[in-house]
Amino acid sequence: MTSVLERLRIKPLEWVEDRPEGPVFRWLDTRLIPWEEVYRETRDYRRVAKAIKDMEIRGAPAIGVAAAYGMALAAYYSEARSTGELLEKLEEARRVLASTRPTAYNLFWALDRVAKAAKRAEPRGVDAIVRAVIDEAKKIHVEDVETNIKLGRIGAKLVEDGDTILTHCNAGALATAGYGTAEGVMRAAVEEGKRIRVIATETRPLLQGARLTVWELVKEGIEVRLITDNMVGYVMYKGLVDKVIVGADRITLDGYVANKIGTYTIAVLANRHRVPFYVAAPSSTFDPKLEGDEIPIEERSPDEVRTVLGKLLITVPDVPVYNPAFDVTPPELVTAIITEYDILTPPYTKSIPEMLRRAGRL
Amino acid sequence: MTSVLERLRIKPLEWVEDRPEGPVFRWLDTRLIPWEEVYRETRDYRRVAKAIKDMEIRGAPAIGVAAAYGMALAAYYSEARSTGELLEKLEEARRVLASTRPTAYNLFWALDRVAKAAKRAEPRGVDAIVRAVIDEAKKIHVEDVETNIKLGRIGAKLVEDGDTILTHCNAGALATAGYGTAEGVMRAAVEEGKRIRVIATETRPLLQGARLTVWELVKEGIEVRLITDNMVGYVMYKGLVDKVIVGADRITLDGYVANKIGTYTIAVLANRHRVPFYVAAPSSTFDPKLEGDEIPIEERSPDEVRTVLGKLLITVPDVPVYNPAFDVTPPELVTAIITEYDILTPPYTKSIPEMLRRAGRL
Repeated sequence: MTSVLERLRIKPLEWVEDRPEGPVFRWLDTRLIPWEEVYRETRDYRRVAKAIKDMEIRGAPAIGVAAAYGMALAAYYSEARSTGELLEKLEEARRVLASTRPTAYNLFWALDRVAKAAKRAEPRGVDAIVRAVIDEAKKIHVEDVETNIKLGRIGAKLVEDGDTILTHCNAGALATAGYGTAEGVMRAAVEEGKRIRVIATETRPLLQGARLTVWELVKEGIEVRLITDNMVGYVMYKGLVDKVIVGADRITLDGYVANKIGTYTIAVLANRHRVPFYVAAPSSTFDPKLEGDEIPIEERSPDEVRTVLGKLLITVPDVPVYNPAFDVTPPELVTAIITEYDILTPPYTKSIPEMLRRAGRL
Repeated sequence: MTSVLERLRIKPLEWVEDRPEGPVFRWLDTRLIPWEEVYRETRDYRRVAKAIKDMEIRGAPAIGVAAAYGMALAAYYSEARSTGELLEKLEEARRVLASTRPTAYNLFWALDRVAKAAKRAEPRGVDAIVRAVIDEAKKIHVEDVETNIKLGRIGAKLVEDGDTILTHCNAGALATAGYGTAEGVMRAAVEEGKRIRVIATETRPLLQGARLTVWELVKEGIEVRLITDNMVGYVMYKGLVDKVIVGADRITLDGYVANKIGTYTIAVLANRHRVPFYVAAPSSTFDPKLEGDEIPIEERSPDEVRTVLGKLLITVPDVPVYNPAFDVTPPELVTAIITEYDILTPPYTKSIPEMLRRAGRL
């Protein structure tokens, strides 16, 4: 592990190599935060897929890294004897991992990178492919942290001393390899000596704001105040919010932003109250093949809405619900997008393709 | 009890006279809905005050009726021997009942009506005051139902066959004496043969939408779909909402509407998506002495936000929160206000005083 990973205070994802029976992938089960800090590990890529699907691991960048390590496990433990057989096994693993969650673009981006690395190593034999897949996964992991740190520094320019920042869901250490996108900007601002306050929305149904963002910011010593999702209008009306910073699960070539359900509502309120609305996302969240609001949106189990975390039934059993996990915010509501390259501003039809060309992705 | 009360399918509040030891006030403990249907009763007005404060009884019109019956209990069980002593006891009861919740205007309106009735009966002696207070409370109770039915019929004109109506919190049978304001409009539309669908927001922190509105509408056979509060933007963006109808806790002379926290957010979204935003409220919810957004807003216990109904801690203990129980929607976001007299439209500075003059309140 390189030093950038060693320096992380929260390590939600780890590739552990020093095991006599071979490497394991280890992760923090974020479903149990803030009650328990439980780490799980596996040698089976199907278990990684399940961890993503069940949201033990969540947040687009974290999903990307975990999926890459899923491929690494599939390669290491495949027992394939020929490169053809191994690539077939890897293709199967990719299909299983890709079918977990449809919206987060980093998932497909990471799987694609790993698959390409495997393909490139094919002429050098089975062991070389295994090595290449593991190396690419580790590279994606390290790059995620480096990218977040860069993005954080760039974004911190937008934060002023004394700012109150509203954020939604969790785009922090627990949504990435350990530094965060939206929370990465906050971390960087605090590292620069700026005093900030955060207002965190609880983020029903799965309460990532109440559970993860609050836990993470309290741990960092950053002042945070929790609100229910329907209080966003109130705090804006009262002038309590200077900036909104959120993460993203997928951003189109023309600047439509898919992010946790509720983001669009916040963007509309920010627009009405002239509060800057910033999205913090690495280049890996951008989908160069999509334009407009046609991003596939995951609809999850109705029981997530009918209950609180499966622990408390809060309504009449079997009442119909809507449960979209994400919504799409149109570009006209987005003040700027913070990436590891630059702060992108409108027109996004110009700034996003420019950034993606710099990233070698267009 | 008059026939209008007998006809109610849900009787959340009752004055029960046929008890050998004297009358009791009986109410449905709405905190236990939808899990249990528990009715409580008391002869002590302080217990009524506690039921209001703890939200066993909630919703501005229901609070008004309950407070009036609290005065009735105070009068009946006072043991005062002189009119002066009785009026003093009643004044004390009024203070206790008035201190329960600061925002709902119907509370102060009802207490005022009962106090005036007592004062008018003073020349006729102690028993006459007791009788006058009880009669006024019963009158407020019956009038609430009659008013809701009238308001419902008037509001139903705004509802078209096939409409999907979004509502927030609970402005139904469980927020009134049994018919409802916003839900009263829906009931009346259904009685007229219109087919409607309802989208109910769960309404954190106390989940009145998920618990009460869904329970009530399922009981009535009205099609309802539950969403979390942060999905309002999504369902509007998708064009799934034809109208918004909500209740109110207090409306100023110039049309500022205090209602359950989250209402303002919905109004802003409705405005952006050109969805009509209707408020349904009886004349007793209008405060003729206030203008602008200076309505006192109740801040409730932080544990309501940190937990779900005190049953499940969802965040780091002791994290600071905001917990305003209400927000204020400015008149420019309100398409119309449905009262028992008329559908009020802008300019509210004209239509509200006109209505209050008809109601003999200005």
